[in-house]
Amino acid sequence: MTTVYLNGQYVPKEQAMIPVEDRGFIFGDGIYEVVRVINGRIHAWDGHAARMANGLETLRISMAGAESATLKAVCEKLVADNGLAAGEATVYLQVSRGAAPRTHHFPPAGTPTTVYAAASAFKPNFAMRDNGAKGITLADIRWARCDLKTVNLLGPVLARQAAQEAGAYEALMHRDGMFTEGAATNAFFVVKGVLRTHPLTNHILPGITRVDIVESIHELGLPFEERPVALAELPGVEEVFVCGTTTDVQPLVEIDGKPVGNGKPGPLTVKLKEALAKRLYGK
Amino acid sequence: MTTVYLNGQYVPKEQAMIPVEDRGFIFGDGIYEVVRVINGRIHAWDGHAARMANGLETLRISMAGAESATLKAVCEKLVADNGLAAGEATVYLQVSRGAAPRTHHFPPAGTPTTVYAAASAFKPNFAMRDNGAKGITLADIRWARCDLKTVNLLGPVLARQAAQEAGAYEALMHRDGMFTEGAATNAFFVVKGVLRTHPLTNHILPGITRVDIVESIHELGLPFEERPVALAELPGVEEVFVCGTTTDVQPLVEIDGKPVGNGKPGPLTVKLKEALAKRLYGK
Repeated sequence: MTTVYLNGQYVPKEQAMIPVEDRGFIFGDGIYEVVRVINGRIHAWDGHAARMANGLETLRISMAGAESATLKAVCEKLVADNGLAAGEATVYLQVSRGAAPRTHHFPPAGTPTTVYAAASAFKPNFAMRDNGAKGITLADIRWARCDLKTVNLLGPVLARQAAQEAGAYEALMHRDGMFTEGAATNAFFVVKGVLRTHPLTNHILPGITRVDIVESIHELGLPFEERPVALAELPGVEEVFVCGTTTDVQPLVEIDGKPVGNGKPGPLTVKLKEALAKRLYGK
Repeated sequence: MTTVYLNGQYVPKEQAMIPVEDRGFIFGDGIYEVVRVINGRIHAWDGHAARMANGLETLRISMAGAESATLKAVCEKLVADNGLAAGEATVYLQVSRGAAPRTHHFPPAGTPTTVYAAASAFKPNFAMRDNGAKGITLADIRWARCDLKTVNLLGPVLARQAAQEAGAYEALMHRDGMFTEGAATNAFFVVKGVLRTHPLTNHILPGITRVDIVESIHELGLPFEERPVALAELPGVEEVFVCGTTTDVQPLVEIDGKPVGNGKPGPLTVKLKEALAKRLYGK
């Protein structure tokens, strides 16, 4: 039986219910995180907690019950209580503005936020990471605050569905002719030997794994620019990978049916995949 | 005690709970409608039902349980059972893609959709409609499918909150320098004696009240263009009103602290307010 956390209580998942008037359900008015847990240790907790705190503050959702120390203890207890202390797991965290009679503007001060967390076993797809996967390109139709990890996720839902139906793993999205990021990942490209990724703006998520990758790039002394890649540059792109908390470094070796480079994970991608593995697993 | 409808059952509102894994809560993966009920009669049901069906079809959410005849009967029963058959009421309807383990792509076929409906008493603010209200202007930060009435509503939530904090009723949003619509309404302007509103594109909601207004404009033989108004035209705008199912025709007489025209509801606005009242109340 899976135990989850809801508003201060640890309950069987089947009993974790929220009122229909929860603003998460009515407006998508909430912030979430997914953290990676390896042998009971949460990877990059401080980064996730800071991003969540920033999102809640920006949306002006109360942090009550969602403070970093509280949530970290919740994650650790869920991992332990669900028998996930050995091996790999993820914890999903969500905070919504709570339940209140429907008004677009915020509910009265003091409306309790909804805080939900659930741990799951996680099994990375190492074969796909080694061999590479397919991608597609799609127009980025999301709103102008992609830097916030909100649950207004219909854009990514539709993009990932389109990718899946095309037999691909991820959709690379482009806005005004420039690649922004993947539907649920950040994207890195190698063009003329230089690693490139979209800079941190309102159009991409400040990924926690992106931080690991950028730090690794600097540690390895690889050529790097935070500069968007144009859709028109795609034919000359030598390597592409996407990254994220549950994605690690995932090479894309075919995009829209055409091979990337020689159709195999490229050398810079492989270096960064190994660097991230070292950060995650310590070896 | 309020009775609401959830997945085929009529239950006390306090007992209307959904699983935390509902995709409405996790992704904002759902469609909604708000209908107006006057003395037990639903105004413009067919328009609302068709828009909802189109939204569900576009998002490929199953219509099972959300067919027009089923939902109309649900609305009528909720109105009757909650003692709202005399006077005014609204019914809120929402259909989400249902509860399933979290994946961005769609859950397995056959995952039951969540269908929720609730009726509330409604009291139009006639004084504000007569006297006019204040508005503000804001950048339209929403996604590129504003034509779908989804619950990915954080853009409108933040815009309405900004309006309220400015002491205004509505935020008029502009994209690429052109007014699109209000945060939760369609917007009409009078410029050089001609009524203008944004054409039906992916950037505005095809409002049900908008249909009433456009039909009334034609019935009254008023000059009219479906052509966006530029933010830069605002100083010369003679009249502004917003409209919607719970907004009717609401004149905006001051925008960003400056009077519109002479600061009172203008003659075309008043004509259309009266025309809509006749459609709603038959007098």
